[in-house]
Amino acid sequence: MRLEFVDTPALLVDLDVFEQNIKACFAALEGKNVAIRPHLKTGKSSIIAHRLLEAGAVGICVAKLGEAEVMAAAGIEDILITTELIGAPKLERLVKLLRDHPSIKLVVDNLEAAMALNAKLEGAGLQVDILLDVNVGQNRCGVMPENALELALEVSKLEHLKLIGVQGYEGHLQHDRSFENRRNSCLAAMEKLGKVAFELENSGFEMRIVTTGGTGTYPFCSEHPRVTEVQPGSFVFMDSDYLATPGVPFQSALTVLSTVISVSESRAIVDAGFKSLSTDSGFATPKNLAGWTYSPAGDEHGLLEKTDPEAVDLKIGDLLELIPSHIDTTVNLHDWYQPQRKGMLEPVWKIETRGKIQ
Amino acid sequence: MRLEFVDTPALLVDLDVFEQNIKACFAALEGKNVAIRPHLKTGKSSIIAHRLLEAGAVGICVAKLGEAEVMAAAGIEDILITTELIGAPKLERLVKLLRDHPSIKLVVDNLEAAMALNAKLEGAGLQVDILLDVNVGQNRCGVMPENALELALEVSKLEHLKLIGVQGYEGHLQHDRSFENRRNSCLAAMEKLGKVAFELENSGFEMRIVTTGGTGTYPFCSEHPRVTEVQPGSFVFMDSDYLATPGVPFQSALTVLSTVISVSESRAIVDAGFKSLSTDSGFATPKNLAGWTYSPAGDEHGLLEKTDPEAVDLKIGDLLELIPSHIDTTVNLHDWYQPQRKGMLEPVWKIETRGKIQ
Repeated sequence: MRLEFVDTPALLVDLDVFEQNIKACFAALEGKNVAIRPHLKTGKSSIIAHRLLEAGAVGICVAKLGEAEVMAAAGIEDILITTELIGAPKLERLVKLLRDHPSIKLVVDNLEAAMALNAKLEGAGLQVDILLDVNVGQNRCGVMPENALELALEVSKLEHLKLIGVQGYEGHLQHDRSFENRRNSCLAAMEKLGKVAFELENSGFEMRIVTTGGTGTYPFCSEHPRVTEVQPGSFVFMDSDYLATPGVPFQSALTVLSTVISVSESRAIVDAGFKSLSTDSGFATPKNLAGWTYSPAGDEHGLLEKTDPEAVDLKIGDLLELIPSHIDTTVNLHDWYQPQRKGMLEPVWKIETRGKIQ
Repeated sequence: MRLEFVDTPALLVDLDVFEQNIKACFAALEGKNVAIRPHLKTGKSSIIAHRLLEAGAVGICVAKLGEAEVMAAAGIEDILITTELIGAPKLERLVKLLRDHPSIKLVVDNLEAAMALNAKLEGAGLQVDILLDVNVGQNRCGVMPENALELALEVSKLEHLKLIGVQGYEGHLQHDRSFENRRNSCLAAMEKLGKVAFELENSGFEMRIVTTGGTGTYPFCSEHPRVTEVQPGSFVFMDSDYLATPGVPFQSALTVLSTVISVSESRAIVDAGFKSLSTDSGFATPKNLAGWTYSPAGDEHGLLEKTDPEAVDLKIGDLLELIPSHIDTTVNLHDWYQPQRKGMLEPVWKIETRGKIQ
């Protein structure tokens, strides 16, 4: 089966590059005592999760309970849910999941939420491993470093939560276009996280896991002696935002394949718009098509404009590959991947965690 | 069942407003000889399609073959696919669909594509009703008005295509913030479409369907005597982009319900980010929450910032409603709607056409 038999729009995976990216990610930490726990909010597929585990990942991260439910059902046990779980419906589902999958780990950044979680687990006769989520500068979730010890001491009184480490995600640094600034800011964030880990250990807490990092920062994170594992996710596929970030040593392994459905003098319309390519990090980039730019032209339409009169013409039925600007939100728009190797198609991979509730 | 039992993020439908919007849409055309064929690329649910048909819709529009497959399977026969279908995989699926659902209508804007379609239908022994798709100013798909008659004459030689009308969508005008400009530009676009319909009729073509319009323009479209039907879709739910468009007489019937999962002094984090609320038309707006603004803070996180020190505080576990900026692309991120009437929940509606291939 060759490309012209792919129904579009489709997420096309270049398997050679995908495998090379995985190798390069692990190679970058060779000889270091830092594990890789890839974030599956990017890939959203248990097939990808299993490939990463086979390559040496210590476990996986997911962003949502719904993703954990899917990954656990696919046979993956060591799962860290990197977002706080709040509210009765979530705790109800969590208890069901933990019964069969006790290795799932959670994060906590607030005593009240920890108490609600503890009460629910008490009723179910369960215990769960937790990490303190620490704000290392992203100013999103996470307890402030100066309040972490106090929270740890309070949480440690809750019998159904077992504190085994800390998480601190420097998400705001991932795409910093200055390599030096990214590295320095990341090391400063790691100092904050390391200091919390040190304080907690000094107070008798076992710091089994100190987890952090993303595709743009994980090598810097791994320089800090307290960090035990890193959480990159986008490296498997990359996107134009990461490709423009200096010193991120991975190649583009995923494109949206689209078909030209209408043409006129200096433009062509493809069947990939807002519902196939996310725009939160800019517009997609045509691959191997000099002299044309892409912009969305509606939910299901994309506009290709000729910027160079010397560029090749496009005709109805032509297949075009578009490099997404943000891989996570683009994958989330699709139901499956179409893997290919040297132009020959392989069976599709379902994106099982797409659209699963938080 | 009350709101606090909804697992978030969730698409919350206010049924009273939803029903009121449908009534208001039909009321606006009362006494006019113009039918409504709502566009289901917005609602993406056969439940919504059936409600609209019960309210008097003449049929439905969909943007993609995959949407037509789902709607046809749900018992809806009069379906117009408003986008050109190109490529062998699409034609293969189309033939299968047409066998059981011969009332499906297509659009064509190019002879070569029409010939490929005709050849495929010939092989299958089928005929299909088609509309010429005319570019009335959006500069996306569509034959130029001055070339429409020539294309019609060529297409009429293809025995398996039956030309029954024209489509011209003035998508670029839907959100024009000037009521007068929107109306005038729309009437000018209708002049172009009407002129094509007139020319084709003069050349012996039956113009059974002259279809056009969206939520922001359909009343103006209906002023033109040649227009037989209009295609609004967003009116059922609305979004902040349409709410800011003057003279669009519908109310917000859909919000994304989210939970506060983390708080600090002047900010709160909710569980709705890029993967729950689209950003292609701006950021979502908190409903009934003065003094706070929303911005995305990652794939699964949203940031609420207090802009007025007098505003109420938010605490962990609070439920917040957010009005999407663009309803079509936000609905596309979810798997179901949670309908409610006066705070009491009703059974969910599945979003069956989400993620279906083009």
